This record gives sequence, C-alpha cells and structure tokens, in this order.
Amino acid sequence: MISWIAFDADDTLWENEIYYQNAQKKMQEILAGYCSPETTNETLLQTETRNIPYFGYGIKSFGLSMIETAVQISNGEISAREIQIILESLKEMISTPVKLLPGVIKTIKILSKDYHLMVITKGDLLDQERKFKNSQLSPFVEVFEVVNAKEKSTYQGILDRWHILPKQFVMAGNSLRSDVLPVAAIGGIGVLISHYLTWDHEKSVNSDLQNFPYYEIDKIKKLPGLIDKINQSEQN
Amino acid sequence: MISWIAFDADDTLWENEIYYQNAQKKMQEILAGYCSPETTNETLLQTETRNIPYFGYGIKSFGLSMIETAVQISNGEISAREIQIILESLKEMISTPVKLLPGVIKTIKILSKDYHLMVITKGDLLDQERKFKNSQLSPFVEVFEVVNAKEKSTYQGILDRWHILPKQFVMAGNSLRSDVLPVAAIGGIGVLISHYLTWDHEKSVNSDLQNFPYYEIDKIKKLPGLIDKINQSEQN
Repeated sequence: MISWIAFDADDTLWENEIYYQNAQKKMQEILAGYCSPETTNETLLQTETRNIPYFGYGIKSFGLSMIETAVQISNGEISAREIQIILESLKEMISTPVKLLPGVIKTIKILSKDYHLMVITKGDLLDQERKFKNSQLSPFVEVFEVVNAKEKSTYQGILDRWHILPKQFVMAGNSLRSDVLPVAAIGGIGVLISHYLTWDHEKSVNSDLQNFPYYEIDKIKKLPGLIDKINQSEQN
Repeated sequence: MISWIAFDADDTLWENEIYYQNAQKKMQEILAGYCSPETTNETLLQTETRNIPYFGYGIKSFGLSMIETAVQISNGEISAREIQIILESLKEMISTPVKLLPGVIKTIKILSKDYHLMVITKGDLLDQERKFKNSQLSPFVEVFEVVNAKEKSTYQGILDRWHILPKQFVMAGNSLRSDVLPVAAIGGIGVLISHYLTWDHEKSVNSDLQNFPYYEIDKIKKLPGLIDKINQSEQN
C-alpha cells in the first residue's frame, strides 16, 4: 500500500519555467545585435550545462550563466549597463510571488488526509524555501527536501532516512529525467504530470533509465484517482 | 550531560575566508582605476549585505555581489573581459581543495568516540556538500545540515528534529553572531573558537543576544578538555 506521496515543486506545484523563459527573452533582446534568439538560447543552455558541476541548479546558477553567456556571445563587447539589466531581471525573478498551478491546493488537501506528503525539489536552498513558505502548502506537507541532484541514490537516501519502502512511495513531477525514472528504477512509483513548459535540460533521459515503467497524467487533479487504482490493483 | 556536539564549517573546520579575501584582492586590482582598495571592500560588503534577502549566503551569492559591485564602482565602465575574470576567480574558488584547519581531524576523531557529532553550516548547498565530502570528516559526523540563516529558531528547529535538549547541545564555531550567541540564547552551550580571519558581516552582533554567557577557546584541540570540564561541573 502507498503511504507516502512526494511532489516535485517547480512546474509541478507552481509556475517556474515561464519566468526563466521570460528572462531568456530579455537576454535575446540584449544580445540581438550579436546573434539570433536561437543561438542565445542554445549558448545559454550549453553554458548552464557546463556550469552545473560548479554552480549546481537554481536561480543564482542561472544568473551567473546568463552573465557568462552574455560576455561570451558579445565577444566581450557587452556593456556593464546591460550586465546590470541581467542582474535586475534575476532579482525580479526572485521577488516574483508564487503562482500555484491549477488544482494543486485542492489535490494536496485531498491527499493529505490519507497519505504522508513530501516535496522534493532541486535548486537553490533559499529560493526554494521562500517559494514553499509562500505557497500555503506547508500545513499539508510533512517533509520538504532541497537536494543538489535527483538521482537514484538521492531518492534511495530519502527513503532510508524516512524508513519508507520503495513500493510505498510515489513521486510525481513534470520531469521524466529527474522525478519519474530514477524513482521507478529503485522500485518506487513514478508519475509524470506533464507541464506545457519544461526546461530543455530535463528532456534528455539517461539511457539506463529508459525502460522502467511509469504512470502519466495530464493534470494533477487526476492523481488521487490514480493512487486509488494503484492501491486497488495491488490488493487484487 | 552533553550528548551532541555541533560544529560550524567555514573557518571552524576548514579554511574559507582566506579564499574570499584573495578574490577581493583581485577585485581591488581590477577596480584600482576607479577607487581605493578600502572603498572596494566597503562597497562589496554593502552589496553583499543588501543582497542577502535575494541571494542568501555562500559562494554564488558572493559571485553575483562581486559583479554588481564592479558594475557599480566603475559606474558602468567595467569591461566584459573583467567580468569574465571575476567569473573565473569564482570557479577557481569552487574548485579549491578543502584545507582542514590544524587539529581538526584529531579532535573530531576523539570527540566522535563519546558524542554524536553534527555540522551546521550556512551557505550554498552544493558548495558545502562538496567541501564536506572532500573533508574526510563524514565518517565521524552523523548529521550534516546546510541552512539559510543561523538564528535562534534555526537551532531550535534542529534540536526539535533530532530530539535534543538544549543543555545536551554544544555548538562550536568562529562566529559569535551565528554560531555561539543564538545557541546560548536558547539554553545551549556556545563555544567560540576564534579564527585569525572572520568575515566582517559576522562581527556585528544583535544587541538582544549580547548578554548570554559562552565559552571561548583559541584552538579546536582544546575542545575535548573543555567539554570534560563542563560535564564535571554539571555533576558537582
């Protein structure tokens, strides 16, 4: 029987990628004199990926990679004033109120009656705690974990710490790579909740994880029904 | 009786501030055409302090504040090449091997025989986990916590989570403001281990905390002796 349900946060519980894409549009405008919008996007994604070992995930890492990309694309020609605009757009992102996705609060309230709930998010400690505090979800969520990466070992560590068996554990999120497949691979139940925007980095999936089965729903409000079905099929 | 001993990490277990000060020296050189080294330092501290609500503590926050300070001091005249130098010095800091302070490994080994050990550090999740992994201390430390701030409520939360009474709990570190006084204020035992370098931000102490008593030693290797004395005085 399922006892714990864990959720990814960004683009699963609240909007996130949209703000990153808006910041990217500002970058494209700033760098319009040097290259096409597509090249700006590609170069930024390359810089972000290259910088993950140094800076990890999250908003500050994104800010540093935006600045590095601007210096690189402009071949050192970008002005300090424009770097300042990038810094300001970063602070604007950090100050943006949290916007919950449709159906989130209702679904979380329903599930919290029968299950232990957990949020597992990667990214910036301060920024994620700020968003969680402002989300109004904290009364219903027992455990809030900010991690550096979402790999099989990350999830195994969390299950060990909270004495949870994999088959008792559901992880629901919008990233196959980070939320769904690593959990499926250790024997847990992965549920993909698709979001209309997902960061390109999350779309590439490690080949050793590709064959694990998982569930998929298009709206979070379908999760309680899915959980009921999984529990029933286990009993039969 | 004391049962848990917690340590701050940066400049308590391993060198840290020295790398920040070296980066600051590089900043002073880059900005030498615009202002004095003292003004660079002062402006950077102001920027860092102003940015804490946005960026929090730690290495990436420092990087973003260095860039903002350079733009500000140069009045927008700093070149992208020089911004690139700042970004590179940041990555260099992140890649620097961890250098334990004298006596740390021996003291930790001694104390781990009789006490539960914990490390509580504020700053960047990824960077602190990297340093902890590389420190060779993890076999002796049961709990490793990265927090956004070190306030009374932070410590109370940790004590609650691990079911520790304040009088059973020692926190040792190089910052009166962050490591020692908040712990003393909630009834725990604060021990200041002075370090020859401490970030200016840590030197200003909230006035409501000033009057709580604490212990002070000049070397970490004196900690086991101090702990013995505290335990004995309690028994008498």
